[in-house]
Amino acid sequence: MSKGLPKRSEDYSLWYNELVKRADLAENSAVRGCMVIKPYGYSIWEKMQAELDRMFKETGHTNAYFPLFIPKSYLSKEASHVEGFAKECAVVTHYRLKNADDGSGVIVDPEAKLEEELIVRPTSETVIWSTYKNWIQSYRDLPLLVNQWANVVRWEMRTRLFLRTAEFLWQEGHTAHATREEAVQETEQMMNVYAQFAEEFMALPVVRGRKTENERFAGAEDTLCIEAMMQDGKALQAGTSHFLGQNFAKAFDVKFAAKDGKLDYVWGTSWGVSTRLMGALIMAHSDDNGLVLPPKLAPTQVVIVPIYRGEEELKAITEKANEFIRALKRVGVSVKFDDRDTYKPGWKFAEYELKGVPLRIAIGPRDLENGTVEIARRDTLTKETFELSSQPIEQKILDLLDEIQNTIYNKALQFREEHTTEVNSWDEFKDVLENKGGFISAHWDGTGETEDKIKELTKATIRCIPINQKEEEGECVLTGKPSKGRVFFAKAY
Amino acid sequence: MSKGLPKRSEDYSLWYNELVKRADLAENSAVRGCMVIKPYGYSIWEKMQAELDRMFKETGHTNAYFPLFIPKSYLSKEASHVEGFAKECAVVTHYRLKNADDGSGVIVDPEAKLEEELIVRPTSETVIWSTYKNWIQSYRDLPLLVNQWANVVRWEMRTRLFLRTAEFLWQEGHTAHATREEAVQETEQMMNVYAQFAEEFMALPVVRGRKTENERFAGAEDTLCIEAMMQDGKALQAGTSHFLGQNFAKAFDVKFAAKDGKLDYVWGTSWGVSTRLMGALIMAHSDDNGLVLPPKLAPTQVVIVPIYRGEEELKAITEKANEFIRALKRVGVSVKFDDRDTYKPGWKFAEYELKGVPLRIAIGPRDLENGTVEIARRDTLTKETFELSSQPIEQKILDLLDEIQNTIYNKALQFREEHTTEVNSWDEFKDVLENKGGFISAHWDGTGETEDKIKELTKATIRCIPINQKEEEGECVLTGKPSKGRVFFAKAY
Repeated sequence: MSKGLPKRSEDYSLWYNELVKRADLAENSAVRGCMVIKPYGYSIWEKMQAELDRMFKETGHTNAYFPLFIPKSYLSKEASHVEGFAKECAVVTHYRLKNADDGSGVIVDPEAKLEEELIVRPTSETVIWSTYKNWIQSYRDLPLLVNQWANVVRWEMRTRLFLRTAEFLWQEGHTAHATREEAVQETEQMMNVYAQFAEEFMALPVVRGRKTENERFAGAEDTLCIEAMMQDGKALQAGTSHFLGQNFAKAFDVKFAAKDGKLDYVWGTSWGVSTRLMGALIMAHSDDNGLVLPPKLAPTQVVIVPIYRGEEELKAITEKANEFIRALKRVGVSVKFDDRDTYKPGWKFAEYELKGVPLRIAIGPRDLENGTVEIARRDTLTKETFELSSQPIEQKILDLLDEIQNTIYNKALQFREEHTTEVNSWDEFKDVLENKGGFISAHWDGTGETEDKIKELTKATIRCIPINQKEEEGECVLTGKPSKGRVFFAKAY
Repeated sequence: MSKGLPKRSEDYSLWYNELVKRADLAENSAVRGCMVIKPYGYSIWEKMQAELDRMFKETGHTNAYFPLFIPKSYLSKEASHVEGFAKECAVVTHYRLKNADDGSGVIVDPEAKLEEELIVRPTSETVIWSTYKNWIQSYRDLPLLVNQWANVVRWEMRTRLFLRTAEFLWQEGHTAHATREEAVQETEQMMNVYAQFAEEFMALPVVRGRKTENERFAGAEDTLCIEAMMQDGKALQAGTSHFLGQNFAKAFDVKFAAKDGKLDYVWGTSWGVSTRLMGALIMAHSDDNGLVLPPKLAPTQVVIVPIYRGEEELKAITEKANEFIRALKRVGVSVKFDDRDTYKPGWKFAEYELKGVPLRIAIGPRDLENGTVEIARRDTLTKETFELSSQPIEQKILDLLDEIQNTIYNKALQFREEHTTEVNSWDEFKDVLENKGGFISAHWDGTGETEDKIKELTKATIRCIPINQKEEEGECVLTGKPSKGRVFFAKAY
């Protein structure tokens, strides 16, 4: 199965595309830019959703659902918002088909034209704030902490499975607060929730930072983000959390009466992560043999493959396997026993490597005799013979899963550290970007013009101003103008 | 809060609409026919989803995700399918907005017209079978057992919250099989899964049956369904499971090689339930005081309300409440302690009645002295003083929750039985329909013409031919022509 997977070193982009398809994660559909998320890919997304949903609820949020369609006039109510999204909107103009008079098939019924066109939501601030207007009267209705799991559509011209698709799945949190401070705090909290999720579950180290004005969300006063580093040295924005100020409250006239009776506009935030995280997960850890999954997000954590000739041997191995399965399930490990006789063990080994199953247990007749099994780790591609008498199998597996989770994280962290370079001149900047990639930590004069110029010259963008930016006097790497601290540049997905 | 909720006996329809809004379940949005599912309503839907999803997985299904958009030409490939859905399709024709030249705002960019219009999925058979063509080559790829949780759009002219909305949330299962028998079995299995879910979790007794040809899904060879009875004597179709024969396989050329190498078209099924179930849940059990929720689907099963004057009393009550909360959470009961001082106990009682919380525990200073609490049941609106020394509180609550679940079910079952009438003449038919409502069990001559005629005359439709239909010679209630068994008629949502 993994035979013929392109090598990362030769064509990273092709490697990614092929891996996504061959590991049964996703594929392109008949509709331009829209993907099909296949069962195996979706099962990983479901694990992500479950953890994120739990984290959102633990921080006081509840889920709700808002309409797919947004009246065109709503989208236009916040000026910079419509500016940001107008160029990529799917527009519904009619509500009926009919048979063509000439019998040529089904056509759009021209008489079923909508009075006002509807936009398929690219994000839901406008429809949600128009709803919040009716939900919020007084300080007692605040804070309002709502999240939505939904599909959204942005008509991208160049698409890539998971990373950039016309339709994608995401969650979007939309909160309303009585004070600026509280909304700012929420914005930061959700960036931290995302960072914690990425690091703890995806084994993906991230830089927490703030977007520059150029890169800010359309309609936000401030955009916080988490940025990850992929194995090809390109950055990937993995989640954003926006402080909306009173922009949407003003656009939709959402006011509340404070304790003292005074009316004021509500303060807002919004924050989201999407199926793009699947792309990050795949690109950060996988290798030329296939997917490498962190155990905490692997749908199957352990696969047991019997090595046998004939029914007799299979029966004895199955007995042992069932014993393991019971023990592993008891401690919450997801395990699969692949006793299909239509495939050979070698084929199965390659298949589960391609699918990124963290641990493989092989049991043969000699193992039964010796009281051993062979345990193979997906992340390091190493094997060991495990003596069953040495410790309970479930303890061994739990320890290994923990170790794998940590190893994957540390490997990614080490890669990122090796690919984060401080540069102090324009030549150095270009050289590092060209020959090494990764994050470039450099001084910048703080202007959008310089940022644009650098992007134009090198395709590198400012990924973020790190939250923990050190105060440091310096000179802008391009203009030589004064700067108070370094920001992170990179080429990005 | 519940003050002023209209009475069921006076205006059932208004009662329903008001209840949905006041209990914070859903509301209409700015987009015609599209609803906002509010946090409380959504939390009930999430509980339904979780149980259904578990049941689907236990029967071997996995989730996946397919595109929102369907090319117009795809929808047309199965003749009766497009016939069934063409009249209610939302159509995307453009992919960009732009600023109007006259500065009047944002308009649809006429230059960004799609080559082929896209339909917002009303159901996904076509896009899924076009995908299955690439997934299925041989018998080894079968059965393919996939489910999708998604939003769909059907441009209904008359809409009602949850019951009939332009956009709704649902799950749609789409399976592919090597033999007719296996597909038929799957169709039946999923009807039974739905029936089990309705009865066990929603406390909603249902009739399992088969749709007549007139009422069949557009593109199916056979449609099985579960039908429930609402308190106003109208029926509600709560779930359907379709045997698709080889219709979609033929439309999308999906063939497989059998073990003997012979090529044949694949057999298909599809099955779905939607947020319509929320409407059924509300209408089946609730009363003039508000929502009545079966404990198995109640987001909060128990609310504890302190009755106190001053900090001292509250402190002592809180201590006791925390003890209960720990004990209840340990046995998996969801419990909320409402110690807000901004609302009075009476207000809270009415509020939790409106929201359908199954059990309310009130604790006052005298209770603390006496070692008692007051427990109130939402379903019967009865109260009892519970002696804490008599048995552990968590056992008492678990027993009560079970009893409530059963009581609600039995009440609905009794109502349905009282509202299921065998009739043997046309006069009787009209009389029962007019004055009593409910299911009418009557003989029918088996023709679509008679069915249409009865619908035209009375608005009653054949809800189903019951699965357990008894063989019984009889005469059609309208035409007098021979019939082999009774079918269920009703007015329906």
